[in-house]
Amino acid sequence: MTIFSKIIKGDIPSYQIAQNELFYAFLDIAPLQLGHTLVVPKIEIDKIFDLPNNYLQNYLPFCQTIAKAIEKSFDCNRVSMITVGIDVPHAHIHLIPFKKASDLYFSNIKLQLTSKEFSEIQEKIISNLIS
Amino acid sequence: MTIFSKIIKGDIPSYQIAQNELFYAFLDIAPLQLGHTLVVPKIEIDKIFDLPNNYLQNYLPFCQTIAKAIEKSFDCNRVSMITVGIDVPHAHIHLIPFKKASDLYFSNIKLQLTSKEFSEIQEKIISNLIS
Repeated sequence: MTIFSKIIKGDIPSYQIAQNELFYAFLDIAPLQLGHTLVVPKIEIDKIFDLPNNYLQNYLPFCQTIAKAIEKSFDCNRVSMITVGIDVPHAHIHLIPFKKASDLYFSNIKLQLTSKEFSEIQEKIISNLIS
Repeated sequence: MTIFSKIIKGDIPSYQIAQNELFYAFLDIAPLQLGHTLVVPKIEIDKIFDLPNNYLQNYLPFCQTIAKAIEKSFDCNRVSMITVGIDVPHAHIHLIPFKKASDLYFSNIKLQLTSKEFSEIQEKIISNLIS
């Protein structure tokens, strides 16, 4: 079972942002920027473009609500969507608010936040979700 | 009219990979890697998450066919999907084949290819498209 499946199942705690029958969104615990969120399908497929069609069709509409909430929550230019996916063999989209392109380099030093800070970010994004 | 709309309209030539009623895919002329492709909606919307729902629903399924053809065409680990989008105010997804995460940094020096090389890449990807 991948670490993401354990998070979805609740065996590993996470700062959950949203979920539906197909996807689970939660804060990246090694964020590049405040509000950096991972959106993961609830099936273990390594590569995003190997997902079944109903996941592909619903992935961006699900991300849309979250990305708009992130954008509203932080001082940023917009929210970037990135799939690299060689770290965990379970497809995932990074949603990262940013000001300039270099804010998005995965080689940048990750933010170290306290659980209080993560909880505040979580609450802020959730409060800006339009259901 | 954005540079992408001019490309879609044919006013600016491009190495077209595929198109349908909603999207147009073509080679990035300043590629980070061989096969670097841009997939653009046929309406001028700046931010990807402001696209109407039918575009959001069909964007990844359209990218899927192209990404699989790119992956098949080049020696790579997989194909990354990236949206930054502060250069041209017209939503676009980068599909970039890569081996390691640092292959994807937009600060990297872009490849300089001849039109013959671009044409060969174009033909190779198209030959691997599964319609």
